[in-house]
Amino acid sequence: MINRVMYDLAGANVNLRFSPYCWRSRMALLHKNLQFETVPWRFTDKEAIAFSGQGLVPVLVDKDQVVHDSWAIADYLERTYPDAPSLFGGDKGQSLTRFINEFTHSVVIPGIARLIVSDIVKILDERDRAYFRETREKHFGQPLEEVTSNRDVEVVGFRKSLDPARRVLTRQPYLGGSTPLYADYILFGAFQWARCASPFELLTEEDPIVPWRDRLLDAFDGHARHARPPFLRTA
Amino acid sequence: MINRVMYDLAGANVNLRFSPYCWRSRMALLHKNLQFETVPWRFTDKEAIAFSGQGLVPVLVDKDQVVHDSWAIADYLERTYPDAPSLFGGDKGQSLTRFINEFTHSVVIPGIARLIVSDIVKILDERDRAYFRETREKHFGQPLEEVTSNRDVEVVGFRKSLDPARRVLTRQPYLGGSTPLYADYILFGAFQWARCASPFELLTEEDPIVPWRDRLLDAFDGHARHARPPFLRTA
Repeated sequence: MINRVMYDLAGANVNLRFSPYCWRSRMALLHKNLQFETVPWRFTDKEAIAFSGQGLVPVLVDKDQVVHDSWAIADYLERTYPDAPSLFGGDKGQSLTRFINEFTHSVVIPGIARLIVSDIVKILDERDRAYFRETREKHFGQPLEEVTSNRDVEVVGFRKSLDPARRVLTRQPYLGGSTPLYADYILFGAFQWARCASPFELLTEEDPIVPWRDRLLDAFDGHARHARPPFLRTA
Repeated sequence: MINRVMYDLAGANVNLRFSPYCWRSRMALLHKNLQFETVPWRFTDKEAIAFSGQGLVPVLVDKDQVVHDSWAIADYLERTYPDAPSLFGGDKGQSLTRFINEFTHSVVIPGIARLIVSDIVKILDERDRAYFRETREKHFGQPLEEVTSNRDVEVVGFRKSLDPARRVLTRQPYLGGSTPLYADYILFGAFQWARCASPFELLTEEDPIVPWRDRLLDAFDGHARHARPPFLRTA
């Protein structure tokens, strides 16, 4: 029996997991070689995680410890399992990782949201759809279908916003250097969110970010690669 | 006699040093507690640094070693003086610092350039002015005065682009954590460039980035604070 559980955002198909924040925690658990099970969770299942004192996933329950918020989970894993591969490369590395965390939060995730939000609503469980549409349309100030209506043009600006990552990844295989660190999983989680929720391709084939994304899709026996739902798979 | 010299971009006033790339190297030398002298250099003094095999500053001459490019200089200092305070917090930290380097290079420095480039030309030595105006006007595709003509409006977008740094600096005193690392000097160099070349204020008073900038202005006995030329000083 595995005594480690992560509450993980699920779509209408209970096996469809697409939260960018849950993906980074999932990759962090794999990086630490920790076994875990996931509990599928929906936006409207606030009661199911009320024990964590708030209403968002990921929530990690590790034996008797309850940890919410993806950054706190990574910090918890690093402190609790110091002999497993490091997520940060030390305290200074953890401090420096904050910048990539905030860049992803304030640039990449909002940028991707504008490109795929109308696809996300389609994959949600029926109970979640009204909640999601209402909260997100309030945020964007327009219908979700209008937010994404010009995405073939807007994607160009989104790609440009990735220049810092692109320039790093032409110089080294991972943001963390020769091997991936939590910084990589932070950014990767955003791409995996789009990949699992939308048919829209964020990058051009020749983008130097693509081989990095491929390496992380292949990591841990292709764990992330296999997660794309069949209806989004192309030849 | 100090056997360590940095070639440093200077204005018409030979004591006015304003290059963002030289500033990060200067702060790195101070961080390492290394004594050094600087040689003032102008854009058109290509011959003076021809010995380095290229035509840009900073160039560091440390005994018999010649190193150019600010990243290479930081890497050289870290490897050569491992017992002095670390600039990166280890190999992983150095890899993670790359992201802040590329963010500053591709977002912050181009953003500031659009706000101050018409002021920079004014502080240059006469021989440099024609060179600077020609190369920069070619880059921007318009007269330098036109580039900055709308800066009171454009600064709003620039400030927004700093969100990742702003969010980190509300959580910790420095990008490097509780004490500054080279990552801080990279970003700080860009602000110091503006501060030493232009009267234009980049940040609002209440910006959480301001106290961080103040701490770095005060570092090393106020080394950077004292560098602003008198004609740009305000009450």
